[in-house]
Amino acid sequence: MTFKEKYQDKVVQIDKLLMRYCPAKEGHQSDIMDAMEYNLLAGGKRIRPMLMQEVYHLFGGTEDMIEPFMAAIEMIHTYSLVHDDLPAMDNDDYRRGRKTTHIVYGEDMAILTGDALLNYAFETASTAFDLAPEKSFVIGKALQVLSKKAGIYGMIGGQVVDVKSTGKRIDAETLDFIYKLKTAALIEASMMIGAILAGASDEEVKVVEKIAEKVGLSFQIQDDILDVESTAEVLGKPIHSDEKNDKMTYVTWKGLKEATKVVEQMSKEAVSMLESLHPSDDFLKQLLLYLIHREK
Amino acid sequence: MTFKEKYQDKVVQIDKLLMRYCPAKEGHQSDIMDAMEYNLLAGGKRIRPMLMQEVYHLFGGTEDMIEPFMAAIEMIHTYSLVHDDLPAMDNDDYRRGRKTTHIVYGEDMAILTGDALLNYAFETASTAFDLAPEKSFVIGKALQVLSKKAGIYGMIGGQVVDVKSTGKRIDAETLDFIYKLKTAALIEASMMIGAILAGASDEEVKVVEKIAEKVGLSFQIQDDILDVESTAEVLGKPIHSDEKNDKMTYVTWKGLKEATKVVEQMSKEAVSMLESLHPSDDFLKQLLLYLIHREK
Repeated sequence: MTFKEKYQDKVVQIDKLLMRYCPAKEGHQSDIMDAMEYNLLAGGKRIRPMLMQEVYHLFGGTEDMIEPFMAAIEMIHTYSLVHDDLPAMDNDDYRRGRKTTHIVYGEDMAILTGDALLNYAFETASTAFDLAPEKSFVIGKALQVLSKKAGIYGMIGGQVVDVKSTGKRIDAETLDFIYKLKTAALIEASMMIGAILAGASDEEVKVVEKIAEKVGLSFQIQDDILDVESTAEVLGKPIHSDEKNDKMTYVTWKGLKEATKVVEQMSKEAVSMLESLHPSDDFLKQLLLYLIHREK
Repeated sequence: MTFKEKYQDKVVQIDKLLMRYCPAKEGHQSDIMDAMEYNLLAGGKRIRPMLMQEVYHLFGGTEDMIEPFMAAIEMIHTYSLVHDDLPAMDNDDYRRGRKTTHIVYGEDMAILTGDALLNYAFETASTAFDLAPEKSFVIGKALQVLSKKAGIYGMIGGQVVDVKSTGKRIDAETLDFIYKLKTAALIEASMMIGAILAGASDEEVKVVEKIAEKVGLSFQIQDDILDVESTAEVLGKPIHSDEKNDKMTYVTWKGLKEATKVVEQMSKEAVSMLESLHPSDDFLKQLLLYLIHREK
């Protein structure tokens, strides 16, 4: 199998896993389950659960307690998109080629759908205590990382500064801060949780965090590059949205050429750190490079 | 000390605890910490953390791992108010006598503040693993209850049906469903977590859940009564809001007299169940009666 075939195969497996972890549509509140599924099963690259699973295997993990965490990290990523798209935030009508939640279900339900997905992420991750009760402390450590990297010292923190900075001239340090928190933090959580649940040492988890930071930053800069270079058809969302929203990005700041160079440089560093940690995982190495050089 | 003095004393202690668990205002994202504190330290009856602590003591709990959970349940309650007040939801400008979050910080920040409080609740509760690592499994059980009762099978589920039912004629079963999920679920979580962390048996936790359900339902019906009978000055929020929002309540459905009778009846049952579980906790017994017969 080629890398692309393996990757597609893993996406299919993760989609199936997410389907299993979607709450059944039942009860008076079935509309919210419907809206959660609408977003959770909308496709997507599934890179966060995939990275988590690959790192888990890299460190010798074999149990199914990784699965609720794989579902949880995708739920958190998904809720952040639902709330990002709201009229009071980016006010986007389309996402992944489909109408956004507030367009389909109304603004009140879109707020509740985001809340529900965030809450359900922790509800789902917490089922791991039943799958591996003897590993409860390690599962607790994974929950600490998940909640920290998703919150005000991670993704939400980045989002706050991003919102506050729109339309303003910001310095390089602030831009870097936004990228690290808004995008890299959740990728750090994905890879760190894979390592933690597999029993990696604190030192190993720290190296994984560093690798993930580089992956996350490159991933975001590549996103900015695609927003300028790609087409709406390929991306499934409007291009030039940064320009439209008057957002300063690495590309508007340094230019396309320099941005491309930085992505190259950081991805090389990430792969070389991964090799020094563990010499032989070809798929993960290829995955990192694919994410960074992707076309959508 | 009278009951009222003891109660006030405990409120002060919980306010101090919440102050300790408020994130420090630092970094580029300090605005969000500010908005979190604005809501978390805005006063309030603190009944959820207080019930949690009292039940924890009732079952012999003595450790400080209860504290992050006390803070967490209040953070969840608080986030739900912030999102409830949003223009796309109840569109309220005042809460506890002060301007609501979207009025003070803007709508985008209010959405993020709610998200941040919900996420930080789990981040805070997860610190319990460091306080009592040997009790990790029990802490995991408490997290399962917290997330379930706050989510689509609890508070959010009730909120969804409430939003969907506004302006509609609903049947008694649906009204009961909304009350159980929207209000009672989080009170159930509070009391159950107190019992679980203190090492209560599964059977005991189930009885506590039943007691809490009665407390929660009576509490909500009393809320409806106050919305009709009290004044905005006493409540610190607009009265007749149910009428304004065209919301069906137990009072609009059954009338004031019947509603008052139901509150009496259920509070008696709750206290008698508590006595059969544990004969001698006077403060908790008085607290249940106070909550149900409160004037604001």
